[in-house]
Amino acid sequence: MGPLNPDAARWMGAALALAARGRGRTAPNPNVGCVIVNRGRVVGRGWTQPGGRPHAEAMALAQAGEEARGATVYVTLEPCAHESARGPACSSLLIEAGVARVAIARGDPDPRTHGAGIARLEAAGIAVAQDMLAAEARTAMAGFLTRQALGRPQVTLKLATSLDGCIALASGESRWITGAEARAHAHLERARHEAILVGRGTWQADTPTLDVRLAGLEDRAPRRLLLSRRHPHGSAEGNGWHKIRSPHDIATLAGVDHVLVEGGAGAASAFLAADLVDRLLLYRAPILIGGGLPALGDIGLGALAEAHGRWQQTDARQLGSDRLEVYERAREA
Amino acid sequence: MGPLNPDAARWMGAALALAARGRGRTAPNPNVGCVIVNRGRVVGRGWTQPGGRPHAEAMALAQAGEEARGATVYVTLEPCAHESARGPACSSLLIEAGVARVAIARGDPDPRTHGAGIARLEAAGIAVAQDMLAAEARTAMAGFLTRQALGRPQVTLKLATSLDGCIALASGESRWITGAEARAHAHLERARHEAILVGRGTWQADTPTLDVRLAGLEDRAPRRLLLSRRHPHGSAEGNGWHKIRSPHDIATLAGVDHVLVEGGAGAASAFLAADLVDRLLLYRAPILIGGGLPALGDIGLGALAEAHGRWQQTDARQLGSDRLEVYERAREA
Repeated sequence: MGPLNPDAARWMGAALALAARGRGRTAPNPNVGCVIVNRGRVVGRGWTQPGGRPHAEAMALAQAGEEARGATVYVTLEPCAHESARGPACSSLLIEAGVARVAIARGDPDPRTHGAGIARLEAAGIAVAQDMLAAEARTAMAGFLTRQALGRPQVTLKLATSLDGCIALASGESRWITGAEARAHAHLERARHEAILVGRGTWQADTPTLDVRLAGLEDRAPRRLLLSRRHPHGSAEGNGWHKIRSPHDIATLAGVDHVLVEGGAGAASAFLAADLVDRLLLYRAPILIGGGLPALGDIGLGALAEAHGRWQQTDARQLGSDRLEVYERAREA
Repeated sequence: MGPLNPDAARWMGAALALAARGRGRTAPNPNVGCVIVNRGRVVGRGWTQPGGRPHAEAMALAQAGEEARGATVYVTLEPCAHESARGPACSSLLIEAGVARVAIARGDPDPRTHGAGIARLEAAGIAVAQDMLAAEARTAMAGFLTRQALGRPQVTLKLATSLDGCIALASGESRWITGAEARAHAHLERARHEAILVGRGTWQADTPTLDVRLAGLEDRAPRRLLLSRRHPHGSAEGNGWHKIRSPHDIATLAGVDHVLVEGGAGAASAFLAADLVDRLLLYRAPILIGGGLPALGDIGLGALAEAHGRWQQTDARQLGSDRLEVYERAREA
């Protein structure tokens, strides 16, 4: 294709921001974002809707109408090539709309589309640019891509600790270590996951509701998972809880591409020991506890050398007097 | 006095930077910094020399020579008013040199000078401005000011931890959690303290040399303190170690205005439980250990509410892949 508009990265960035809106609500479909630009003006915006349909491109094209003709489309994932009972293939829709160019952040690993979406576009004379902001797109659609690559959801571990790494006093008191801003952010993260998991100790101690306590997001309460090898006192099933016996069981959950492990130390350690944590949300309060409950138990580390190089920080921000740091599994260079 | 030069804060900032050079080497004298400015040009710079003499003002005046006449002097502490066998009073030297103005960051709490230095300058017709960058000066001369106010040295606690707050694996392995840059910074901090302290466990396990392993700073090896209620195996005395039985004993150490508590968890917790920690250096590596040795043991915390509001972050920086955060005892507003 010809040279991209110099604003191309900005438009793709906008498409990635739209993609984030669907996170945790579109599985097993990817959460895609799409921006259509005609003569420097945005004429359509779309993102995969809850449940997976309409697709982002269909939504953006409907908004653009006739203005899609000759336009450039920025889409975070290769447009699908497979017709479905639930709707036509996005590559067909783009061809019919007469767009001139399609910029794609990442190819679709789904074997029904993989390369076929791009081939269809190019066969119709549409210029295609690939791999624009591919790394950012991997982060934005991590749940879908993890499911495609590894056959399991993306797992995020949340820890809320003191400066000395405690999640509670020795007495068990843990309300509150972090402040209101950090807790609100943690609730927003819940809305970005199809499922939330706690261990048996946390389930018994707190009978946590694990809902999303944010105005306007109340309907996003994710599925509730309980990690327990034993049958707990009182059945977890029937109260909206689904019990799994091993961290690896998350692979069997249909419609779940993002799991948030909320605690306690036992569940967190089990997922780390199984090497099933992809992302770490570390909320830290500027307090010292001393002799409290540690954030983690044994995770199977044999020597310090094994601990290094596993995590890279990808985000950090201040939340009131607390600090949030986000780490992701380090990737090979 | 008349309006200060608009660059006044910058000159006082330079004086504070010079003050930092003496940190850990001037006790029982304060580590003062001094800049003399004549017609917008720096004509003299001084800082308290190791051992406490010459004073900062004397050094700066010697450098300025005749150019001190009519100049403005920026000094971090009120110039002394008491003559000594080791040298004349700085207020006398400033009057003799014919300076026009003296800007002072903080008054001297030493009863021999307290207010008398300023009174002597003003009586000689020199304009005096007080409390310029007073908060920064409190930090720069914290050891002296803590000794004057509380009768004990300023205490800094150093912790080097994983993200989950461990200082070693359960096996005791702790080399290394942090990387070379963080360890070099920790050595630089040693040079800023008259004394370094470890607990008995660390002393026995590591027989640490606690020297300053930085090129050009080898001569700065601070005094070595061992915190131990019991007599350790093999006397610590005679190997250059001085033993104290309680954290409060640091008040009795002559010529020590800055103590760095290096570990381990027992010594750190004893100083925190005694409410004797003024400053916290937290070096954190981006690793998870899980089930390791916690940074702290019991520090006497009864409830979470007591933990909040005690610490405020005053600095943070990246050191290689590690992060240093500096916290100081929160002050009343």
